[in-house]
Amino acid sequence: MVSSKYMTNENNSTSKQKTIKNIGALENGDKFTGIVKIMRKSQPGPVIFTVSNGYGMADAVIKDSDFNVNDIVEISGYVNERAGKVQIEIERIKEMKIDFDSIIDKSSEPNNTSFTIESERLEKLRPYFYSISKRIRRAIFENQPIMIRHHADSDGINAGLAIEYSSKLLMEQIGVNPDYNLYRFPSRAPFYEITDVFKDVVLVKKIIEGHGQKKPLIIILDNGSTPDDVLGLKAMKSMGFEMIVVDHHNPVIIENKKTLVDPYLSFHLNPYIEGLDSQTCAGMLAYELATWICEDYSNPSLPAVAGITDRSNIKEVDEYIKKSKKSRRELEEIGTAIDFIAYQLRFNSGKGLFEELYDNPELVKIINEEVRKGSKTQLESTLPYLRTQDINGIILSTIDLEKYTMKFTYPAPGKVVSMIHDTVIIDRERFPVITIGYLSDMIIIRSNKPVLPVDKIIERLRKDIPHAHIEGGGHECAGAIKFIPAHLHEIIQNIKSQVKELSYEGYIKDDN
Amino acid sequence: MVSSKYMTNENNSTSKQKTIKNIGALENGDKFTGIVKIMRKSQPGPVIFTVSNGYGMADAVIKDSDFNVNDIVEISGYVNERAGKVQIEIERIKEMKIDFDSIIDKSSEPNNTSFTIESERLEKLRPYFYSISKRIRRAIFENQPIMIRHHADSDGINAGLAIEYSSKLLMEQIGVNPDYNLYRFPSRAPFYEITDVFKDVVLVKKIIEGHGQKKPLIIILDNGSTPDDVLGLKAMKSMGFEMIVVDHHNPVIIENKKTLVDPYLSFHLNPYIEGLDSQTCAGMLAYELATWICEDYSNPSLPAVAGITDRSNIKEVDEYIKKSKKSRRELEEIGTAIDFIAYQLRFNSGKGLFEELYDNPELVKIINEEVRKGSKTQLESTLPYLRTQDINGIILSTIDLEKYTMKFTYPAPGKVVSMIHDTVIIDRERFPVITIGYLSDMIIIRSNKPVLPVDKIIERLRKDIPHAHIEGGGHECAGAIKFIPAHLHEIIQNIKSQVKELSYEGYIKDDN
Amino acid sequence: MVSSKYMTNENNSTSKQKTIKNIGALENGDKFTGIVKIMRKSQPGPVIFTVSNGYGMADAVIKDSDFNVNDIVEISGYVNERAGKVQIEIERIKEMKIDFDSIIDKSSEPNNTSFTIESERLEKLRPYFYSISKRIRRAIFENQPIMIRHHADSDGINAGLAIEYSSKLLMEQIGVNPDYNLYRFPSRAPFYEITDVFKDVVLVKKIIEGHGQKKPLIIILDNGSTPDDVLGLKAMKSMGFEMIVVDHHNPVIIENKKTLVDPYLSFHLNPYIEGLDSQTCAGMLAYELATWICEDYSNPSLPAVAGITDRSNIKEVDEYIKKSKKSRRELEEIGTAIDFIAYQLRFNSGKGLFEELYDNPELVKIINEEVRKGSKTQLESTLPYLRTQDINGIILSTIDLEKYTMKFTYPAPGKVVSMIHDTVIIDRERFPVITIGYLSDMIIIRSNKPVLPVDKIIERLRKDIPHAHIEGGGHECAGAIKFIPAHLHEIIQNIKSQVKELSYEGYIKDDN
Repeated sequence: MVSSKYMTNENNSTSKQKTIKNIGALENGDKFTGIVKIMRKSQPGPVIFTVSNGYGMADAVIKDSDFNVNDIVEISGYVNERAGKVQIEIERIKEMKIDFDSIIDKSSEPNNTSFTIESERLEKLRPYFYSISKRIRRAIFENQPIMIRHHADSDGINAGLAIEYSSKLLMEQIGVNPDYNLYRFPSRAPFYEITDVFKDVVLVKKIIEGHGQKKPLIIILDNGSTPDDVLGLKAMKSMGFEMIVVDHHNPVIIENKKTLVDPYLSFHLNPYIEGLDSQTCAGMLAYELATWICEDYSNPSLPAVAGITDRSNIKEVDEYIKKSKKSRRELEEIGTAIDFIAYQLRFNSGKGLFEELYDNPELVKIINEEVRKGSKTQLESTLPYLRTQDINGIILSTIDLEKYTMKFTYPAPGKVVSMIHDTVIIDRERFPVITIGYLSDMIIIRSNKPVLPVDKIIERLRKDIPHAHIEGGGHECAGAIKFIPAHLHEIIQNIKSQVKELSYEGYIKDDN
Repeated sequence: MVSSKYMTNENNSTSKQKTIKNIGALENGDKFTGIVKIMRKSQPGPVIFTVSNGYGMADAVIKDSDFNVNDIVEISGYVNERAGKVQIEIERIKEMKIDFDSIIDKSSEPNNTSFTIESERLEKLRPYFYSISKRIRRAIFENQPIMIRHHADSDGINAGLAIEYSSKLLMEQIGVNPDYNLYRFPSRAPFYEITDVFKDVVLVKKIIEGHGQKKPLIIILDNGSTPDDVLGLKAMKSMGFEMIVVDHHNPVIIENKKTLVDPYLSFHLNPYIEGLDSQTCAGMLAYELATWICEDYSNPSLPAVAGITDRSNIKEVDEYIKKSKKSRRELEEIGTAIDFIAYQLRFNSGKGLFEELYDNPELVKIINEEVRKGSKTQLESTLPYLRTQDINGIILSTIDLEKYTMKFTYPAPGKVVSMIHDTVIIDRERFPVITIGYLSDMIIIRSNKPVLPVDKIIERLRKDIPHAHIEGGGHECAGAIKFIPAHLHEIIQNIKSQVKELSYEGYIKDDN
Repeated sequence: MVSSKYMTNENNSTSKQKTIKNIGALENGDKFTGIVKIMRKSQPGPVIFTVSNGYGMADAVIKDSDFNVNDIVEISGYVNERAGKVQIEIERIKEMKIDFDSIIDKSSEPNNTSFTIESERLEKLRPYFYSISKRIRRAIFENQPIMIRHHADSDGINAGLAIEYSSKLLMEQIGVNPDYNLYRFPSRAPFYEITDVFKDVVLVKKIIEGHGQKKPLIIILDNGSTPDDVLGLKAMKSMGFEMIVVDHHNPVIIENKKTLVDPYLSFHLNPYIEGLDSQTCAGMLAYELATWICEDYSNPSLPAVAGITDRSNIKEVDEYIKKSKKSRRELEEIGTAIDFIAYQLRFNSGKGLFEELYDNPELVKIINEEVRKGSKTQLESTLPYLRTQDINGIILSTIDLEKYTMKFTYPAPGKVVSMIHDTVIIDRERFPVITIGYLSDMIIIRSNKPVLPVDKIIERLRKDIPHAHIEGGGHECAGAIKFIPAHLHEIIQNIKSQVKELSYEGYIKDDN
């Protein structure tokens, strides 16, 4: 066996060439000579170095050595397979005075810098894609683990899957083991909650530092841009973590292209910063980024599903739908199934299960039937008890969700209010319609026209009922408000007064 | 060392004989020659095959080989021990054109086909036992993992333990490692909930497919037969899982021996299908099945405890009690302890702890004292506030469980209502007694005579109060009803009306 | 390589000396000869013994051997390094008739028996420190795992960290792997709850017995002394676990220095048993114990933080603060951060994260800012709705916490009542002030003077409202009462009556 392998090597002049490009693809019997950086050193016993040549990663073994992590050396030796693992058996090793960073920096430049669709919106954000994809590639080439945190809805999950799978593909191509270098977790809250931060730190300390690895690069998707994220990001930064945010939620405060979270991030991609809005959702942004991280990665259904479930109306969604070769209906049902599964799994990352949905239309159908049934129940239970008033031409409806919906049942309150709202609108499209669902400490608002933006409601409530400690936020036509339970009814009355005070005719005029 | 071992082998003519029967019991120095099926192939490095001779399993190693999983080959070689693991070092390997399935099929036939007790009920179900035990044995012989899901009460847990331990015993006998091939999880809900389904799939994708193993055979115990199970089973089936259900709950709809869940199952053992009732509980069925899976398995206390805690009154229970050599009281206390532990552990399978109860009477006693104390508290807190009326000779009692019981305290609401009911009955055995405990979105019903079966109550409620979205079910004399919270008081009033409308005298006549 | 190593050994007469003292520090090429006890035997394959010479632990390998765990033998052989692990390759092994226990017993005696500060309180407890530190050291020398359970507040966590880190240090010094021998878990409840007991048993069965190890020694910190702990300790004892309690909570019943939990413990350190009080908190006790377990362990900030957060006023706290070289303010903020993290992490042990707080003042600052903000919100939301009455010179305030505080928000109800109470006291220091916060099934009480101790309140409530099933307890000036929800208002009225009946003037007289 040995001789034949060596023969293969001797008359294989391309082999050396190949290994210099991709040390991660070395085979038994190859001979490797090249300049590498030591990424990891494992002792005691014979020294095992994990080395990078700036593109790929391999193990190299030597009886003993004083070289250490971060040293740049030239090594030479034959490749041998042991217990199914390929190793370079170092024959010669010597120090090299060379700027290895520039080699890695060169490798880190994305090979692909085209978007998968034509889009002015994306072009406007091009510099962010370049620097973020380069940073993530660099992490992979430097054997730095990657930890993805994403919002646990269809948009966030699709964003997470895109970055996870493209990073995995690149890792496999260059010989890095994704099992120890790639993590993905969902966040229930619509921001990077402090509880998630603490859990991440405990995990990093346990799993990753236990393997003698670097601090991971943290990538936060479909979360991370808003004032609510400041606490978590600040805490992570204080512990020396580097973080990247890719989000499409309104950062609220932007001055000179700087948001409240920027001091804690190395990169922040958010369309609002460049004057765009939330329609280019996180799933689209992350998908395009994924194709820059690894040019061989592709799954155009992902951004299509993300866009549809986030109710994005821009032409980019249609482009993705076209590329996905699935119908809008099919993609929407995949999104619904993702949301349903995310609801059931809570803090479980659902590894392998979300992927299944893209290949198993029967499962998608089964889940959608269940969701339709549940939606019908929630609607039938609430509609008869909906109180609807016409206040100066504005249709205001209220419903007590605690009394009239099933607890712990999908769809959850937010979606229930959306469904009720969609029902109220029927035949009233021309009127402003506001729908309010309430729990003991929360109010959910939906409207079809921005006559009374959620931000304004909150501002006024804070002024009128300060002791209620109003929190929350949202878009112009949708939002949620949290408060001290005692003040629920006062808050509802106050919102009704705000509607009464509206000069709706004035609004009509302003609008036209 | 080597020579002595080979000597042992050379003059050991029975050795080969033995290994052909049980390849799983090969020892260092044995020589093996036989026809095997390749169950697993591990690469790269030297190829390690996991092979089965249709009865046992062993590892066989060869430098390289083009044979693959599912190939039938004849191999020959000496057995060597490496790092504590026995391997056949393949000297010769050649393809065999043979119907290996028939060999495995033969091995899969149960060696034991007797029930441990005499029982007409069990005899009526004999064909199910044969085909199910054969299927489970086949999974074990084919190195297919087994995943057990069982209801998290004493009946379900005992059923789970019986199948787990008999499967484990057979695995160990034939050389399969139970650590990677046998899983058991409790289901909190009285059906195979969609959340459990999703968790199972994620686990399968992670643990099992990560080891390059087959999709597991899913065995659902004391759950799985009812309309509520359809969603979960349908979803699992769409993902290509094979499932077996062993349950004793009423499937409600049975036509031509077919239930609503049958389209999704490969086997379905439920006494109702053969015209029997729920008295042959899951713990009994699973225990008998366990003795067919592995004839060396035995623990007659298990079905006795299951029967007692499920309030089964058939003579089979007495048979099991006799065989257990424990008193009814002792067994009942074990069951109480199982229920208490299951309540505390929630989603934890309690591995090792339930087993402890069968060997540690002191622990059983400690827990039972605690349960008695808790029961006394719950009774003393509720009884003074129980409202009891005599409605045309029917004794109807109601109690608000949210107001008058301790939250998150064992015994839980269902058991509390049973205890209250048992107290109300005292000295009123001859009258129909109905006891109702209510929470904000649930009503629990117990009665001593089937004057007003729970099914009928539900049917009427659905008709009279459709917006309440009545769900639930139960036996004739016990059940639980879930609904939209707003309608609680209307529902209680409606049940009272139903009682009033009963012609109780008529009932008496029917009954005699 | 081999020759040079052997040379090192041959002319190294101190080497043998060293290895006899610490077999855990053997190096490649050393020769070891000595009397050892077999702690573990791993088979099949070549036999690997884990042996102890009464001070350190090492692996020793031999092709085959009939010796077993607990045998005392003399072994001799060279030390070899394999796969980074040092092993003695046994050349000779023979049985020794020797009392090995006395050797281990000698090693187990603590090397350090001084307290880190001067303290009469500690001196009074000296014998407990000696026997407990000796027992824990013995567990480490005998390769018995240690499982720490501690209350999940700053005092309990600091206690847990002290024992964990000193045990870890000793294990590392003598060659025991802490990864398999040292566990630490927080208990949410202020006692060793039965749920925690069951989880511990399942874990022990799974992890520890899976590695063929001994039953762990259970150490319970800042919990374990009270009547509420009896059930859990009794259950553990029935399963053969040995437990040590180090706590400072009032055991309530002490007769002849025996408490209700003593029958289940091997050692019980609690200041009350020696006539002291709760001011010497668990963090202080555990820290001093830690320095006796391993004399090289030191972190004086731990007991300082524990004392400050447990509001201890004794001079020992000042001593610890001085030794910590941090200001009281800094230490207090670390304690606040620990409490905040423990609240967020719930059942997660927070491994690595609590430690971070001692080295990362920026993180401490970030968390404290957040806590201050949350505290301000809770105060602003509650104070306007606080009902305060002057009842015969006693200031009694009540607040509905469910209505007027944010759910699931830190600070939790207990701390909120403390803050409200501190606010009410301002300018009323000379009057007795009692503050009561209530939830639907719980009342939290704080007072500045012991005019109406919580024990007395409970005693009277039990007498007057037996159906409410009053539970709970606390100190003279602080406590919590649980009950059946229906009776909340009756209970509050009853407490008001108790206040009214107080002869406050009489109290003043008694006090002076």
